[in-house]
Amino acid sequence: MAKNVAIAGVTGAVGQEFLSILAERDFPINSLRVLASSRSAGKKISFKGKEYIVEELTAKSFAGIDIALFSAGGARSKEFAPAAVEAGAVVVDNSSAYRMDPDVPLVVPEINPEAINQHKGIIANPNCSTIIGIVPVWPLHKANPVKRMVVSTYQAASGAGQAAMLELKEQAKQILEGREPVCNTLRYQLAFNLYNHDSAIGANGYNEEEMKMVKETRKIFNCPDIAITCTCIRVPVLRAHCESINLEFTDPITPAEVTELLSMAPGVKVMDDIQNNRFPLNYSPNPE
Amino acid sequence: MAKNVAIAGVTGAVGQEFLSILAERDFPINSLRVLASSRSAGKKISFKGKEYIVEELTAKSFAGIDIALFSAGGARSKEFAPAAVEAGAVVVDNSSAYRMDPDVPLVVPEINPEAINQHKGIIANPNCSTIIGIVPVWPLHKANPVKRMVVSTYQAASGAGQAAMLELKEQAKQILEGREPVCNTLRYQLAFNLYNHDSAIGANGYNEEEMKMVKETRKIFNCPDIAITCTCIRVPVLRAHCESINLEFTDPITPAEVTELLSMAPGVKVMDDIQNNRFPLNYSPNPE
Repeated sequence: MAKNVAIAGVTGAVGQEFLSILAERDFPINSLRVLASSRSAGKKISFKGKEYIVEELTAKSFAGIDIALFSAGGARSKEFAPAAVEAGAVVVDNSSAYRMDPDVPLVVPEINPEAINQHKGIIANPNCSTIIGIVPVWPLHKANPVKRMVVSTYQAASGAGQAAMLELKEQAKQILEGREPVCNTLRYQLAFNLYNHDSAIGANGYNEEEMKMVKETRKIFNCPDIAITCTCIRVPVLRAHCESINLEFTDPITPAEVTELLSMAPGVKVMDDIQNNRFPLNYSPNPE
Repeated sequence: MAKNVAIAGVTGAVGQEFLSILAERDFPINSLRVLASSRSAGKKISFKGKEYIVEELTAKSFAGIDIALFSAGGARSKEFAPAAVEAGAVVVDNSSAYRMDPDVPLVVPEINPEAINQHKGIIANPNCSTIIGIVPVWPLHKANPVKRMVVSTYQAASGAGQAAMLELKEQAKQILEGREPVCNTLRYQLAFNLYNHDSAIGANGYNEEEMKMVKETRKIFNCPDIAITCTCIRVPVLRAHCESINLEFTDPITPAEVTELLSMAPGVKVMDDIQNNRFPLNYSPNPE
């Protein structure tokens, strides 16, 4: 049962999460190969108390590998995922490279695990904002089809990678010390600021991140006509994206029905302070 | 023409804005009385190069005053605005104390200036989130009535007052130095975090800020049936609230029509990077 696993992009924020989740789940690993760009080759990575040397990601990295987890950016997935498939591995790709490819299943385990069976070597997972948005929407959609979905995001620096998280902290320090914040990785000042998600704005006025949420959701829900609009905003938080989601259903639905459906939904936690109105009703620090 | 002006709550974040806007507009002032709590009495305030001593706000503060600008919290407006009216002043109240009072006009100059004529001594202005949300919605609503409005806010610390802004900076410093962030004014850690607006959540699941936006908008638009839903979120920004607003119109409308209406609307600036897609289309720092 134990598998030979490779991780491409192991030094990145997502690569590190791959490792911690594999350890947390005690995933049966026979051998582990940790891959990254030539710049990171030779670095040491620790996993379950053992040390691994980072190797450069090349087309030859995948001999004998059963499962290759990719999160090294779309360009590297395009370049190296086919080589991994060629070598006999199943690729799980976290980049945007193959998500909309009709030959590649786009899978969220809580929503469409059966789509995995159609894979031809590559299985894609959606954008981070798409996943967290649609995991709670799916059980509602199954009970009462969603006609229209209006999403506003509050996206953390982590979505732009580890360098962006470090830069956010650096910028905060610079501002607190009265200096000008420096932008190398981030598009604009993010500390004490927020802005339109740093992907490009297309001809229709939506940025790429917003269009990813629209297209990926339609593919995963197998529902090409669902009306979706998103506003994707980067906020000065280190980790964990948030979203405000407004849904229009086919039939009437009550907040109690929604809460009940969500309380049984896999991957969803209904917070106590929403269920129990934990805030004291006389609490109001805001003078306006 | 020159007026005798009093400012109640002059040491607060809004009080300071009152002064800077009166100076900026060169408002014709005959005499200026600066009022605050007993704690701030005796402090010196500078306005247009002259010094003023802060006096304690009491029922006797308004003799001879023509215009009293209040932003000292709802409780103080309730207590002292009637005394100001009694003394012959017109009160412009920034608190929530009188906004929903049917005898008090709730006015946004760009929207319903004519409502001022109905005042009986007190004129209220809406919540900060309501104002910035509805100033651009109004010219669209006039051209093509809005049936449904879905708002998500990104509200700065400034909305909770000057102490909240200072605390946000303190918290950021504490976190960067590896210490625990301290919450005195803010309900929770705000630095590198965000949360449901710090007002109380009512029985319908909406917090007070969200209900203010619903009720105030309906009153200002004189449109009691307009469907409005809000999600109000406090974000770690010092000043300037942002909002994501999705509108459903009675008749079809195009983005070009919306942009044209907004480009002529008072108090609205259509940003160049939205009009001209300033972002380079090949720019994408986000590996996912």
